[in-house]
Amino acid sequence: MENILIGIDLGGTNVKIGCFDHELKLIAKTSVATKADMGPEVVVEKICETTEKLLAKNGLSADVIEAVGIGAPGPSNIAEGIIISAPNLPKFKNIPLRKMIGARLGRPIVFENDANAACWGEYVVGAGKGVRNMVFLTLGTGIGGGIISNGELVHGFNDNAAELGHIIIHPQGRLCGCGQKGCVEAYASASSTAARAAEAVQSGAKSSLKKVLDKNGEITCKDVFDHSAAGDTLAKEITDGTADALGLLCVNMLHVTGPQRIVFAGGMIAAGDLLLNRIRHFFKQYIWPLKKETLEICFATLGGDAGVIGTAALALHDWEQGKL
Amino acid sequence: MENILIGIDLGGTNVKIGCFDHELKLIAKTSVATKADMGPEVVVEKICETTEKLLAKNGLSADVIEAVGIGAPGPSNIAEGIIISAPNLPKFKNIPLRKMIGARLGRPIVFENDANAACWGEYVVGAGKGVRNMVFLTLGTGIGGGIISNGELVHGFNDNAAELGHIIIHPQGRLCGCGQKGCVEAYASASSTAARAAEAVQSGAKSSLKKVLDKNGEITCKDVFDHSAAGDTLAKEITDGTADALGLLCVNMLHVTGPQRIVFAGGMIAAGDLLLNRIRHFFKQYIWPLKKETLEICFATLGGDAGVIGTAALALHDWEQGKL
Repeated sequence: MENILIGIDLGGTNVKIGCFDHELKLIAKTSVATKADMGPEVVVEKICETTEKLLAKNGLSADVIEAVGIGAPGPSNIAEGIIISAPNLPKFKNIPLRKMIGARLGRPIVFENDANAACWGEYVVGAGKGVRNMVFLTLGTGIGGGIISNGELVHGFNDNAAELGHIIIHPQGRLCGCGQKGCVEAYASASSTAARAAEAVQSGAKSSLKKVLDKNGEITCKDVFDHSAAGDTLAKEITDGTADALGLLCVNMLHVTGPQRIVFAGGMIAAGDLLLNRIRHFFKQYIWPLKKETLEICFATLGGDAGVIGTAALALHDWEQGKL
Repeated sequence: MENILIGIDLGGTNVKIGCFDHELKLIAKTSVATKADMGPEVVVEKICETTEKLLAKNGLSADVIEAVGIGAPGPSNIAEGIIISAPNLPKFKNIPLRKMIGARLGRPIVFENDANAACWGEYVVGAGKGVRNMVFLTLGTGIGGGIISNGELVHGFNDNAAELGHIIIHPQGRLCGCGQKGCVEAYASASSTAARAAEAVQSGAKSSLKKVLDKNGEITCKDVFDHSAAGDTLAKEITDGTADALGLLCVNMLHVTGPQRIVFAGGMIAAGDLLLNRIRHFFKQYIWPLKKETLEICFATLGGDAGVIGTAALALHDWEQGKL
């Protein structure tokens, strides 16, 4: 392949587009506002136009596109390339995104959900490089997941797999946004971490976070980790609660798909070793003593580019496998 | 393929051997005592001799064997066909079983762990027939598991996958034989079900099981389900505790590998609808209301033959894929 690959990461706020050579080296990238309220047709046209402009700016014509990968929020029908619905793209109901972009650009399109696309990016060129079995977890407002088993993404029946934030770890525990009780997301997402801190402060727990709440009217996840790092006892308890849930999740994932490496991504990993070392600590507390487990727990390395790299890499993968 | 396939299920007490045509129709089967204390060389010779006798008895020579599948207890190195150790085969430490049988029979050998082999059997011709994504759980002294993702067994790094009995569902819960706390196996295996009943009776709980304990000195899992069926309140609580843990496990498995069907096997499924309907009940209690889940929860159909069918089917699969 001499031609180039396009990776598109469709988000509720922005669309990121990257242009890569066949060794997945970035040639150029750009980002535009999604303007999701304009509806799918307008968004698709904007994506395609921006892609062509990006190529033109780099002296390339649209003819050099070998294949395009696009990652989108879900639930989606991945095989058919359809967004079924998406909380942050309210006008996208049963939208055949792959077909629409394919018709406009005239090139083969590979469709994937956004968490899987980012997982694939980390797997191919990021923190998962060199392993064949990996679990990927994004710690943001919610907890998203992706699973690589023997070098392939796990999709499951009806693309139901890897809803890893909704594994129940405390059956009678905190109510999750999904309606279940005790999901790992109800403890360890950025918003749940912030919520647990706010609840504790509001219940009268002594903490330096009280001033933050009084001043800003809210506590963010970053506040909690900052105050934990500064030594506040309550904040430490809260961040340990997050790491505890994630360490337990690592044990459970190890027992299910047997990953060699679990990669954490998302805004929360900015907390650094304060988070990573404690996840590893709780993993060791929970895991069986039967045998020495060699599971590696680490942070993602591609940051916000995981999606565009991942979608381009998926396009390359399917091209190499003769699927396009 | 005109030739035949051999399936071997090596257990601690018996070795089952089946002979199948290339449509996996059983031609003949037999079973012999393992006599594991005689050591691996003797056991291997016994297996091969019995296989040849089984063929001869059916007017076939050993030349008609296309390939042989063997399932063995673990932990094992599946790619290399080595039993690393096995609690019920104490003299089998780092035994290259595939190589030994291959050298003796002169045919290609496919090696798999026993739970995965039974899972594959149910997948190909049993309760999992027709799906591409399935989870298999055996309810016995322990809880074993197998996972089919997109038509392939999930092995994980170092064959660590599908230790599904050791998913932690109650982080500060009952101590499991593996050393972890709150594993699903610590609640829902046959031995844990019996143990929870005995503990309750010994603590003074009123139950018709008291007489059983006094008379037999123990309570079996079958006793608990029998008394539950007869209406004993404590026995019902105990069997509901088992079904509760398994329903929760179904929720978690649905969120991880996204199976279309979860198949329960093992001695405990003799309890019938009293078990199956309650697992389904608790699954519905725990699963999110976000969308209608279509997960099918059912019982295995092959009984004790799942292992021999599964190993023969794996041999066929690898033969068809040109891996042998």
